[in-house]
Amino acid sequence: MKPTIKDVAKKANVSISTVSRVINQKGYVHEETKVLIDKTIKELGFVPNQLARSLTNRSSKIIAVIVPHIGPYFYGQLLESIEAQAQANGYKIMFFNVQDDPERELEYIKFFEQYNIEGIIIASNFQNANKLDEMKVPIITIDHILDETIPSITADSVKAGELAAQKLIKGGSKNLAVFRGPSFLMTTIERTLGFKKEIAKHNLYAEIFDFDLVNPDAKLIEQILRANPHIDGIFCYSDTLALVVQSTLQKIGRRVPEDVQIIGYDNTPFCEWVNPPISTISQPINLLGKQAFLNITRLIRGVELDTLHEVIDVEIIERKSTR
Amino acid sequence: MKPTIKDVAKKANVSISTVSRVINQKGYVHEETKVLIDKTIKELGFVPNQLARSLTNRSSKIIAVIVPHIGPYFYGQLLESIEAQAQANGYKIMFFNVQDDPERELEYIKFFEQYNIEGIIIASNFQNANKLDEMKVPIITIDHILDETIPSITADSVKAGELAAQKLIKGGSKNLAVFRGPSFLMTTIERTLGFKKEIAKHNLYAEIFDFDLVNPDAKLIEQILRANPHIDGIFCYSDTLALVVQSTLQKIGRRVPEDVQIIGYDNTPFCEWVNPPISTISQPINLLGKQAFLNITRLIRGVELDTLHEVIDVEIIERKSTR
Repeated sequence: MKPTIKDVAKKANVSISTVSRVINQKGYVHEETKVLIDKTIKELGFVPNQLARSLTNRSSKIIAVIVPHIGPYFYGQLLESIEAQAQANGYKIMFFNVQDDPERELEYIKFFEQYNIEGIIIASNFQNANKLDEMKVPIITIDHILDETIPSITADSVKAGELAAQKLIKGGSKNLAVFRGPSFLMTTIERTLGFKKEIAKHNLYAEIFDFDLVNPDAKLIEQILRANPHIDGIFCYSDTLALVVQSTLQKIGRRVPEDVQIIGYDNTPFCEWVNPPISTISQPINLLGKQAFLNITRLIRGVELDTLHEVIDVEIIERKSTR
Repeated sequence: MKPTIKDVAKKANVSISTVSRVINQKGYVHEETKVLIDKTIKELGFVPNQLARSLTNRSSKIIAVIVPHIGPYFYGQLLESIEAQAQANGYKIMFFNVQDDPERELEYIKFFEQYNIEGIIIASNFQNANKLDEMKVPIITIDHILDETIPSITADSVKAGELAAQKLIKGGSKNLAVFRGPSFLMTTIERTLGFKKEIAKHNLYAEIFDFDLVNPDAKLIEQILRANPHIDGIFCYSDTLALVVQSTLQKIGRRVPEDVQIIGYDNTPFCEWVNPPISTISQPINLLGKQAFLNITRLIRGVELDTLHEVIDVEIIERKSTR
């Protein structure tokens, strides 16, 4: 039998409510009594039930993190960085895959209320954004801005688009293409905006194609590359997509970077090891995660954030898929 | 103000304990009263506090999953498959990174008790295995066997080693090497066992080298490959390691598969897209995850498992890095 609060009270010869005050660090208890109770708790190996405590305190020490997937490199790294930061600060992380399903989102919202979740970090494109107004706990979004009033941390996707365009143009590409992800995502829109703005300065135009960034359709990519032999510079919105494009170009007899330059996105480790190594945009994923956690704990403590919408710098990693 | 159980009781003109019996589906309530209370709960938008319920029921509907990392493909896929299965069955997943830190493990064990976690799936090499005996909830391990008495689901790592050896020998390699992961892991031991058993049949011998499977030391790999030009067949215990090996061999002027055959592990998507595409061992990760979840819910319901230690089949995916 696990020892209960009653056992502690009995052994220390005090009331249950005195033990409770010590456990919850609320209300006055004489210092000597406190020491005695702490000692008794240790002797009996009593573990205070956190569920019961969080009912009183409204403090569950749990933060929810919502992601659209886990598989891709970006989300795996992000979860790892948030969890590391949480662990260092005595918080636990519950993660939820919404998989772009609005029904799941609603179910999770209910769950968050039921479990007194202290804060929510949203790294997915949350479709029930209006429901978040009703939540009583702090919310921060990563990689998306859901609402003017909800704090966010995003990478500078406009700059990412500009950097990619500059590099392709500098390498001499004239017939540009953008191989994008889902067009409704803010990151997609911003990257494209930056890219287009930059090439417009050089009177260039980009053809735009939409793909699944996680599981690109290799057949479709081959058909598009064969049908458009004029394309000589491609900005891909994931490294996986860039790798499939590079491999397909090589298969149909076109050289990278001599005939076609390629730039990927995310700086996934494999970029360094493929042939040629892939130039890519690097977002500081660890910083995004750590900063999101830091800000949510600030909000939980009632501290105002310096910036409501924080934008983190990106850089281009030049390898051999560009000239 | 959020409606409370008191508001429901007042509006339905019943006692709080009657409402409680309906919410918790415990004890007798007249059918008409039940319908009235359900209706009132809906009208008021009352959300029963799951924390309070789980105190009574000892049912938190939360399963903990412990992983050593999230970043690598294997764990990302595993978490995704477990979470999908949990979602379909009304469970939530809390995941924990132990990062091979025994202190963290102990901290988590305490947490699991505090939160009435219903079951624990361990996909890491848990170092405080002896402490698990004291846990009052079902535990299942994936990819490891911690103890005879703790149910497990593992892939057939011995067979994986045999398959890799057969393929390298069939392709004509005579001077074999094994580029392993941490030698204390059961998977490492079993893969090596199967590989050695198979090559012994052909009077062949394998040189063994240990590496970090997630972030392989590329310089060390280059030094080893340069110092051992006789090696003509390598079994790598991760696809990332296989990719670095392949890329390094090409860099120092050795052809894959003509001079050296390579086999990786995990069937990570990039294997298909690198040049040459990498032959690899495929574990059914989704099946591992789903089966682990299924078995833990069986144990929670008190159902006996058909097999205490379930072993899942593996296969070799033949691509162009082998002859």
